[in-house]
Amino acid sequence: MSTGLTSLAAWRALAEHRRTQAFDLRELFDSDPARFRKYTISQGELLLDFSKHYLDGRTLELLVALADARGLREWIRKLVTGERINVTENRPALHTALRSTRPVLLDGRDITQDVVRVRAQMRRFSDVLRQGTLKGATGQAFTDVINIGIGGSDLGPALAVEALAPYAAKRPRVHFMSNVDGAHVDAILAVLDPKTTLAIVVSKTFTTQETLTNARSVRTWFENAVGKDSGHFAAVTANVEAAHGFGIDDERIFEFWDWVGGRYSMWSAVGLPIAIAAGMDAFEAMCEGAREMDEHFTMAPFGANMPAIMGLLGVWYGDFFGRTAHAVLPYDMRLKRFPDYLQQLEMESNGKGVTREGEAVDYDTCPVVWGSPGTNGQHAFYQMLHQGTQVVPADFVVCAKPNHALPAHHEILLANCYAQSEALMRGKTAEEVRAELQAQGLSATEIARLTPHKVFPGNRPSSTIVLDSLTPRALGALIALHEHKVFTQSVIWGINAFDQWGVELGKKLADRILPELADNAPIGSHDSSTRGLIEYTRSRR
Amino acid sequence: MSTGLTSLAAWRALAEHRRTQAFDLRELFDSDPARFRKYTISQGELLLDFSKHYLDGRTLELLVALADARGLREWIRKLVTGERINVTENRPALHTALRSTRPVLLDGRDITQDVVRVRAQMRRFSDVLRQGTLKGATGQAFTDVINIGIGGSDLGPALAVEALAPYAAKRPRVHFMSNVDGAHVDAILAVLDPKTTLAIVVSKTFTTQETLTNARSVRTWFENAVGKDSGHFAAVTANVEAAHGFGIDDERIFEFWDWVGGRYSMWSAVGLPIAIAAGMDAFEAMCEGAREMDEHFTMAPFGANMPAIMGLLGVWYGDFFGRTAHAVLPYDMRLKRFPDYLQQLEMESNGKGVTREGEAVDYDTCPVVWGSPGTNGQHAFYQMLHQGTQVVPADFVVCAKPNHALPAHHEILLANCYAQSEALMRGKTAEEVRAELQAQGLSATEIARLTPHKVFPGNRPSSTIVLDSLTPRALGALIALHEHKVFTQSVIWGINAFDQWGVELGKKLADRILPELADNAPIGSHDSSTRGLIEYTRSRR
Repeated sequence: MSTGLTSLAAWRALAEHRRTQAFDLRELFDSDPARFRKYTISQGELLLDFSKHYLDGRTLELLVALADARGLREWIRKLVTGERINVTENRPALHTALRSTRPVLLDGRDITQDVVRVRAQMRRFSDVLRQGTLKGATGQAFTDVINIGIGGSDLGPALAVEALAPYAAKRPRVHFMSNVDGAHVDAILAVLDPKTTLAIVVSKTFTTQETLTNARSVRTWFENAVGKDSGHFAAVTANVEAAHGFGIDDERIFEFWDWVGGRYSMWSAVGLPIAIAAGMDAFEAMCEGAREMDEHFTMAPFGANMPAIMGLLGVWYGDFFGRTAHAVLPYDMRLKRFPDYLQQLEMESNGKGVTREGEAVDYDTCPVVWGSPGTNGQHAFYQMLHQGTQVVPADFVVCAKPNHALPAHHEILLANCYAQSEALMRGKTAEEVRAELQAQGLSATEIARLTPHKVFPGNRPSSTIVLDSLTPRALGALIALHEHKVFTQSVIWGINAFDQWGVELGKKLADRILPELADNAPIGSHDSSTRGLIEYTRSRR
Repeated sequence: MSTGLTSLAAWRALAEHRRTQAFDLRELFDSDPARFRKYTISQGELLLDFSKHYLDGRTLELLVALADARGLREWIRKLVTGERINVTENRPALHTALRSTRPVLLDGRDITQDVVRVRAQMRRFSDVLRQGTLKGATGQAFTDVINIGIGGSDLGPALAVEALAPYAAKRPRVHFMSNVDGAHVDAILAVLDPKTTLAIVVSKTFTTQETLTNARSVRTWFENAVGKDSGHFAAVTANVEAAHGFGIDDERIFEFWDWVGGRYSMWSAVGLPIAIAAGMDAFEAMCEGAREMDEHFTMAPFGANMPAIMGLLGVWYGDFFGRTAHAVLPYDMRLKRFPDYLQQLEMESNGKGVTREGEAVDYDTCPVVWGSPGTNGQHAFYQMLHQGTQVVPADFVVCAKPNHALPAHHEILLANCYAQSEALMRGKTAEEVRAELQAQGLSATEIARLTPHKVFPGNRPSSTIVLDSLTPRALGALIALHEHKVFTQSVIWGINAFDQWGVELGKKLADRILPELADNAPIGSHDSSTRGLIEYTRSRR
């Protein structure tokens, strides 16, 4: 079945271009000394270097033609003006409104007024928590905050709280409880005092199984220590009534709205833990950085448009080179949760096999997005990036300036980051290896034996994103950059990036299995594996 | 160029088998009610269910024939008896000797005597630390231990310390400092008191750039607080002299040997932080669990051999179905570092493109290994696992019994784990979706519009590994299982799993770039991107 994409002239031209060009990176650099200047984009506190890619002037032209043919400009307009582009759920996807400085009308109402109102509520609440003037049931100030949420109610805030650690007040400390695993709950509660702990229950629907299960266990933990007291809870939700029913006071309920998708929600009240940890000013600076990226995405021509270029490169590798994985390699320990964050953002948005209209696609969509911080990864999986049989395009992310007091460490970090992309691109030929081994005085036999193991094929593409430093503004821009990269890809692929039907079936089957795990409970109809696992588990305890 | 593998009769039979069979999992289960019984292996405290795979009796027979044709049995013998199978470095790979209860001769010497000696030293040291009788320069007991190491000197110990948290003494707490990023160093030192902190420097060569840089910064931090005092350091290394030169006392230097590979070293003195955190008895029980798996791997026929089956399944998907990624999904927050650990174990061992003899391979080797704990992943990337265009074979790992006091949470965790593999396997047909939407009373138009979005293709394969509970013994077996899975694959692919030449080039280039980052320093010859990045960085600070 064809969705139209692969029969577009722009698509066919790209296929032909890919077939007829060699895309040898060493050669592309040798033949054009201006390559770095041509293929970098600077925006706000960010630089994107996309010169180490299988790309020349013609490639860029064709990729931009593809974006035009798919109406990317018009889709961006629909996104930011609140059209109901989440067609299967009949909703807009208005995360950009959360950081807009201009009115955004939805059904004739300016929704940014709601945003302003909730932001004021966030500021008041985070201020008194940080000042230590908000007290718990026993009259003590709160020393610790637990964010109880999973997926979009966890990954974004956890990323930002860690990234902005240098901006954090000493108190309260913020903890993230996501997994329904009792070990996760246990490990967090074990080190906290219920008398000085506040918990925020974060769930758009206020029905998320993990979050509500964890919230109830935390409520019991509070009640055992201080009795029934609603003052140790706050909630962030679109279902105010349910939060109220859980026993949370109205002024502690922070609203967000069904026009905000979970994985795009850290700019809403879901960002409350960021405001508590790093301060409301930092949270607002983060939103401001994102807003600047929104404007860049909306205004810049696609050939010089950071998110558009990154999105198009992903399509180029995935659909024309058969690349099925994409590595994210932050050279910054404070961004260590960034790959996890992007896994949800990209794979939950675009990990789909049908178009908006419900046609099966006849091309590949979202790759596996994975990675971990450098230099750690160098001592783990980089062997495969350099010499494995599979080419994995990669994004390096690094800061020019550190925000700690060990500058010599930062120089080593930077040198390693730039060296890795250089090594992936250049590789090392058999001639270069032989010359080196000869210089070391090895025998001809040894040289012949070792050379093939020390050859690096090279020609492995990567981008490098340089942040001036890890400020709230740069962080906001970095995240919005990736939101719009994902949106660009969804437009090319014709996918609705804002639903997630693929999570429903597992939930439903889990509800069936749960009662069957009890001793002697009847087990319904399953395949022999599922049934066997249930029986085996019952037999082992 | 052919390496012989793809022209083997067993290989060609597998290719033919793959071409002529449908491998429809629903059908395989429907047609054979004994499937679970046939395709599970129980060993020690572990169960492997491999029934949800593209596999029938004939497949298993052919995979075993492939293992036989590649001489797997003989290679296992070479591995455990200490032949120099790391041919490029002319060394044996004797991690099994670290947990052996029988003598292992190397060049005529029983090396298990060295193991026993160092284990006794580890017990003495971890005991006095746990008892609080070992004192620092100011006469106070140590409350905290920093493990300074990266790669194999970090990932295994960090995994085990977290997994065995319920066995941990309250003091000392163990911290892991791996990244050269000053932010990592800063974050750890900020919460510790140098007077009550001990640091272990872990590096096989004692030259690892990150580890030595971090160790020197920690030494300065000690010296500023307590003056020069060697009593706050220990070392784990194969280079005793260098550790001594760093200023560490002989009785605080724990030796390991060049016959232990970094990523296989947690069973050696590299496991010292495990002994400190969870106790030497727990460390030895972990080794015992690994030893039992070694025996199983050595003795069990390949058709009922856990590591061999897991290894062969990876080859089956990678080389006959074009699968390029493998997901590891532990339903256990205490195993959250397991995917990171496996990334090194698998991708550094088998992420290679030449055989032992230096021939380029003409087949795919190591996939991208990635994943994160359930249920968190369900709210992040599972959308793509269920409905994406790429099929990613997955391993689920879960414990029958929890070791915390919230059993209701554990039931939900288990139900979700089993539901996910069921959902991946069964999927949901358009007929099933339509029936469900009809039952909900939707209009025909709505049903037609929504159905394609709610269809799950299914037929997505996975294994499930059930541990009785997360004991040291089960953990040891789980890790050894994966070591031998990786070894099995290396034998099939004809790869030396024990070298890592792919990490050399980046290191060398980093040494060149490091001085060039200084203001006004001359910049040598680079491509315009690398040069541009260096200049840009200099300009931004």
